[in-house]
Amino acid sequence: MTTNTQIKLARRPVGEPQGSDFEISTATVPEPGEGQVLIKVLYLSLDPAMRGWMNEGKSYVPPVQIGEVMRALGAGRVVASRHPDFAVGDHVTGTTGVQEYAVLDGSELTKVDPSVAPLPTFLHVLGMTGMTAYFGLLEVGQPKAGETVVVSGAAGAVGTVVGQIAKLKGCRVVGIAGGKEKCDFLTGELGFDAAVDYKRGDLKAALRAACPEGVDVFFDNVGGDILDTVLTRLRMHARIVICGAISQYNNTTPVKGPSNYLSLLVNRARMQGMVVFDYADRYAEAAREMAGWMREGRLKHREHIVEGLETFPERLLMLFRGENFGKLVLKVADD
Amino acid sequence: MTTNTQIKLARRPVGEPQGSDFEISTATVPEPGEGQVLIKVLYLSLDPAMRGWMNEGKSYVPPVQIGEVMRALGAGRVVASRHPDFAVGDHVTGTTGVQEYAVLDGSELTKVDPSVAPLPTFLHVLGMTGMTAYFGLLEVGQPKAGETVVVSGAAGAVGTVVGQIAKLKGCRVVGIAGGKEKCDFLTGELGFDAAVDYKRGDLKAALRAACPEGVDVFFDNVGGDILDTVLTRLRMHARIVICGAISQYNNTTPVKGPSNYLSLLVNRARMQGMVVFDYADRYAEAAREMAGWMREGRLKHREHIVEGLETFPERLLMLFRGENFGKLVLKVADD
Repeated sequence: MTTNTQIKLARRPVGEPQGSDFEISTATVPEPGEGQVLIKVLYLSLDPAMRGWMNEGKSYVPPVQIGEVMRALGAGRVVASRHPDFAVGDHVTGTTGVQEYAVLDGSELTKVDPSVAPLPTFLHVLGMTGMTAYFGLLEVGQPKAGETVVVSGAAGAVGTVVGQIAKLKGCRVVGIAGGKEKCDFLTGELGFDAAVDYKRGDLKAALRAACPEGVDVFFDNVGGDILDTVLTRLRMHARIVICGAISQYNNTTPVKGPSNYLSLLVNRARMQGMVVFDYADRYAEAAREMAGWMREGRLKHREHIVEGLETFPERLLMLFRGENFGKLVLKVADD
Repeated sequence: MTTNTQIKLARRPVGEPQGSDFEISTATVPEPGEGQVLIKVLYLSLDPAMRGWMNEGKSYVPPVQIGEVMRALGAGRVVASRHPDFAVGDHVTGTTGVQEYAVLDGSELTKVDPSVAPLPTFLHVLGMTGMTAYFGLLEVGQPKAGETVVVSGAAGAVGTVVGQIAKLKGCRVVGIAGGKEKCDFLTGELGFDAAVDYKRGDLKAALRAACPEGVDVFFDNVGGDILDTVLTRLRMHARIVICGAISQYNNTTPVKGPSNYLSLLVNRARMQGMVVFDYADRYAEAAREMAGWMREGRLKHREHIVEGLETFPERLLMLFRGENFGKLVLKVADD
């Protein structure tokens, strides 16, 4: 019998999650029931949103319960199937959780083709990350050619995709990221028009230099001081997409609200939140367009792959420390 | 020769404006030039926005300069005219400033008919206040029949109009105001479905009781803790209209940003600023509709009239202390 190693939420983290907030346990690999599929998990998506899922209280998804396997999006291979649409050997993505094997209903899985792109890419550009960037930018941000689009967390999973789509749409694109290496990557590899290194200090002056005409669309993954600074640079009728606020997720004090929010009034601007699930019926359409851009070499992607299921708690922290460069993916097993 | 008493901005207030931030001076009554009109000011509109006009820095209008007559919207009577559209005895509104007599270009004036409504009403429902309520609610808030609309500063100039228009559009309307008398007026006289007295404490519980289904549209005149509390009660796809933030205008510390702004994300909600001037080409249309509602008794208005040009500095403070009840108007002279 093969065992299934699982990472469960042991208690609700206070501030930055600790190793002791999780427990590693082993279980028997489950059998799929009628309509279900057993998946060997190969890769897991590590996302800032996971921190929110660990908290109690109302949000856009129910919290992970204490003692439950930690929620995660994963990609894997079918090893047993009792669903007519899935055969052993098929590759799939779904909410597998942080474990080696997962049983899911066929209806909860998406079949993916590793000849189109490597598996981790289906957790990135062709998965939730890409969908978040695509719909958040295009549907909520509504950029027009010639406008200035600024994205925070620009060298991260969502940010790299947002910036490139904005370039494809004819915008001037400015990324905010931490460190020279990331900034150089944005302008040198991904074609951003400018990058601002928030670690160098005087973000306001740097942003003014990078966006002399002001900001039409701001896609925010970070919140805190970065959001507050961009608010000072809005153009008339600007749109701010609230995708996340990674700077605030581990707070033990209240979230820092944007002091400069009255810039919305002065500039007749709007700030709007988005959750990617609302666009589920259009994922396939977006993935086709994104895959086309990838084939043409107009949409690059960078995955930052780390290994070892047991390392989940410490790997997750890389996101909050800005240690990932591109989409952070945890490799669980060889295919 | 008649003299013209004027209230000028003597220095930029720090925090709450003091009498010493203004100076009273007298000048000769000016002569109108070609295309200009001399107005005897009868009433002045006292507005929270005036506090912002006293500050240096970029905003939606240029700041009042030190030594300039304080900016104000006023209503008056034409006493001399060199513009073909205006005759002596006509009544007009315009940006007269805080003074007894003003010379303005005819193009800057609106002729009003005191047989339709008393002059102060043209500074209220049929003036900027009414326009702000009308376009802010209908164009930015976009309420639908059956939705819950909450308005802060509900017993104030804009709030009373917002709530009544929302009722006319078939919404459930909840006002937030300070004190039992104001709350009773909202539900008893203006037909609000509920009123929440923020001075009674536990605003969150009171708001939950008044809005059991949550909030679809929030029209915010106040900011601060009130905005933060309403953010915890948003329904999916809620709209927040940022019209003002009277609780923050006299701050000597940074504005309190809304800590709960991530509720915008969870609820796919938006927060949008508005400035009434953007709708100038539709004022006439809105005023006609509002006048119709007034004639039918479906739109009530309450003006709070105080007297004496020289009392301007202290009267203005009534707004920030919640001492006005309805639209605050300063009477300058008898007609």
